[in-house]
Amino acid sequence: MSQQPLQHHQAEQQIRDRVNQYVNAVRSKDVTQIATLYSDDVVAFDAILALQFVGKAAYIAHWHTCMGYAKGDTLFEVHQLQVTASEQLAFSHSINRCGCANEQGKMESSWMRSTQCWRHSSDGWKIVHEHFSAPFDVDSGQAMFNLQP
Amino acid sequence: MSQQPLQHHQAEQQIRDRVNQYVNAVRSKDVTQIATLYSDDVVAFDAILALQFVGKAAYIAHWHTCMGYAKGDTLFEVHQLQVTASEQLAFSHSINRCGCANEQGKMESSWMRSTQCWRHSSDGWKIVHEHFSAPFDVDSGQAMFNLQP
Repeated sequence: MSQQPLQHHQAEQQIRDRVNQYVNAVRSKDVTQIATLYSDDVVAFDAILALQFVGKAAYIAHWHTCMGYAKGDTLFEVHQLQVTASEQLAFSHSINRCGCANEQGKMESSWMRSTQCWRHSSDGWKIVHEHFSAPFDVDSGQAMFNLQP
Repeated sequence: MSQQPLQHHQAEQQIRDRVNQYVNAVRSKDVTQIATLYSDDVVAFDAILALQFVGKAAYIAHWHTCMGYAKGDTLFEVHQLQVTASEQLAFSHSINRCGCANEQGKMESSWMRSTQCWRHSSDGWKIVHEHFSAPFDVDSGQAMFNLQP
């Protein structure tokens, strides 16, 4: 057995660990911890508000805005996570169940799609590109929040 | 100078060439040519109709559906393309101007976000994951088609 597959397996596990850190940070609304995952030159395509966020400062400001929408309890679950990794680059994608409690305390959730692209450097693995979205209905242009995976 | 950066530069150019092939195939509505770009195990998060398409057959069927919406002239431009590549894996992202002529022959276009994740094998570079979307407005849930990059 060559050494390469083992290294890739290790890289894949490192990415899975990073995704777990990300999930825990989102659940605890810890933007400082979330920020440690991104490269300074990250380009992010988020689900709301803008076409893109260029650079970590712009994206972290957006994360603070997003956390402002989630006043109550939040739900953030990663499903069907797939990771493809080499020693230097990796990408991961998943279907995420996301929600937060409304003003009556009732949890409202929907399924979203998440893609994260990672680069390894002396700082470890960092997200250099992220894409998060919901699909929309062709006729109405409405985001489709009722789809089930 | 080590050999590695040169190899990465070559890989990056190969991905840019593949993106050009993709753009030309989309513009000419050539789904057979589009299909050559995808891995059999591709997982795609497209902008419309479903959360995800798992496997090349399902995604190519969706491409045929999409082409059915574009009866007249089409517009498909890739802007701000960024490619990150190693010998084995790569990812690319861009802001794409997409449109088609309406029934009165008037071109209607909007900006979309595109992410493609690539794996190299004996078959060359193939897309193993794709994510294409528009952001939505938080209050209305409407896809935001009027944003400018």
